[in-house]
Amino acid sequence: MYPPHTFAANPLDRGEVERRDEGWIAAQAQLPQSQFLPFSNLNVLLGDDPAPTLGWLSPDGIPSDGLTSTPTMLGMMDGATHFAIEVNEDAAAFIEDWTDMRFVDCRAAGESLPGPEGGIVAQARAQLDWHRRHRFCSVCGQPTEKRRGGQMRFCPACKAQHFPRTDPVVIVVVEDKEGDRCLLGQSRGRLQRMRMYSALAGFMDQGEAIEEAVAREIMEEAGIEVKNVRYHSSQPWPFPSSLMIGCIAEAATTDINMDAEEMTDVQWFTRSEVLLALKGKSERLTVPAPLAIAHHLIKSWAMGE
Amino acid sequence: MYPPHTFAANPLDRGEVERRDEGWIAAQAQLPQSQFLPFSNLNVLLGDDPAPTLGWLSPDGIPSDGLTSTPTMLGMMDGATHFAIEVNEDAAAFIEDWTDMRFVDCRAAGESLPGPEGGIVAQARAQLDWHRRHRFCSVCGQPTEKRRGGQMRFCPACKAQHFPRTDPVVIVVVEDKEGDRCLLGQSRGRLQRMRMYSALAGFMDQGEAIEEAVAREIMEEAGIEVKNVRYHSSQPWPFPSSLMIGCIAEAATTDINMDAEEMTDVQWFTRSEVLLALKGKSERLTVPAPLAIAHHLIKSWAMGE
Repeated sequence: MYPPHTFAANPLDRGEVERRDEGWIAAQAQLPQSQFLPFSNLNVLLGDDPAPTLGWLSPDGIPSDGLTSTPTMLGMMDGATHFAIEVNEDAAAFIEDWTDMRFVDCRAAGESLPGPEGGIVAQARAQLDWHRRHRFCSVCGQPTEKRRGGQMRFCPACKAQHFPRTDPVVIVVVEDKEGDRCLLGQSRGRLQRMRMYSALAGFMDQGEAIEEAVAREIMEEAGIEVKNVRYHSSQPWPFPSSLMIGCIAEAATTDINMDAEEMTDVQWFTRSEVLLALKGKSERLTVPAPLAIAHHLIKSWAMGE
Repeated sequence: MYPPHTFAANPLDRGEVERRDEGWIAAQAQLPQSQFLPFSNLNVLLGDDPAPTLGWLSPDGIPSDGLTSTPTMLGMMDGATHFAIEVNEDAAAFIEDWTDMRFVDCRAAGESLPGPEGGIVAQARAQLDWHRRHRFCSVCGQPTEKRRGGQMRFCPACKAQHFPRTDPVVIVVVEDKEGDRCLLGQSRGRLQRMRMYSALAGFMDQGEAIEEAVAREIMEEAGIEVKNVRYHSSQPWPFPSSLMIGCIAEAATTDINMDAEEMTDVQWFTRSEVLLALKGKSERLTVPAPLAIAHHLIKSWAMGE
């Protein structure tokens, strides 16, 4: 495995067997050694004494009327069951005041936390967000209930089971025929605001293999044909629930025909320019930080790995 | 790319740009050259004159009161826009009678059709099934509407957008330390009924990298630790909407500790036994047919590819 990406080193045992027992989960939530990670508006509680760390609380540290949903069971570690909880604004203010910790955006948390703790943030944020957006049954429209500690929602009305979704995204560094240049793009939105270029990416469609999605996305965004798609590594990306599937591909054509609705610019960049950019020393190219798999794809290509 | 798997050679241009224009889609659905692929209870219309082929109909071949949903736009090919439609039982009987074609289970269709036509079946079946199960908004419970020819559902009540889901599944052949044997399992359900052994597989969880999901699934189902996970190839599997991510991994341990709730048996099989089974000549081992990526993973390992 590639040295784990940010968000990809979750140490918890998710307890696939244990979580089938609703009574066991409820009992675990009452145990004094159980640990609770609070979230407020999808921001996670972090301490920083001395280094950034997750703000786990024990059951008696949680304002009993401050929860906005039932706890989500993340998994087991060091003999304790770990949960994520969502708190309302009053409870969040109380917790910050009482613990001297702070609720932090999860992307910033991923940048500052050690790998295993970032992995826990990824699982928790993706699950909490999914539950927020799936309170009703998509089959019949009636309210659903959290089951298995959050790994399923059940509809009492029509008996449908709904499972959390993970959306596969292909993200691709394309190298030119000579292997001297790579294709990077700036999409509208965040990359444009940051004047940054990154690997081209897009959600997979239904009925596609990974290699087909790569070819379609690169054709759509840049008008370039690709061949020899190679898998590189993958990264969970909990904004809200993507699986980034990193690939490197070879271009079969050269002339760029950009999708101007989605992209502000797509260019071929030389290896020397990319190497400068990875060190933050290029005047014309800025690339994503190591938080994102894009950085590592670009680096692997530039280093000839 | 691996020689395309069944369901993975869809030739349609999905028209990501064109389908953002609802008026364009509606106009295309009226054109005499547009093509419609009927489904009845998720079975697809096939002809067989002389070989199995998709049962495309032109607009005037469709009973106007027989549709159970608005057409789903699949994409463009040969100058025509192609749609999938769902028909009720009366219309299905009428179509079968009039065309001398038959509605066929999509797995059987995948086995008999040429690759590109199987790819169209995969896209169509996954999309139709998703729409059947997502008539209501999971955020607010109100009815949603099909948009972009079926690539989105929109909630007029709360303005939420919902996109078709694709569920990543890892499927893995694990080889032992010596490289002489591989780990195959028989899960409860279909494999058990068919007395078949296959590569171990499971849905990815939220907040996991592919390599992490592989390690978790093999540990859960077989109690085996793995290392050196290598990506092999991928296959869309529209039952209902999986993306099979095929991997080969090395075992770091030997003793099997099976999850008896999910599996009926897990065993190490020798290369010679597996090679016999791939030819259908083993008395103690049956493996999946070439329809499934599992066949190709097992074959790649056995052939030392």
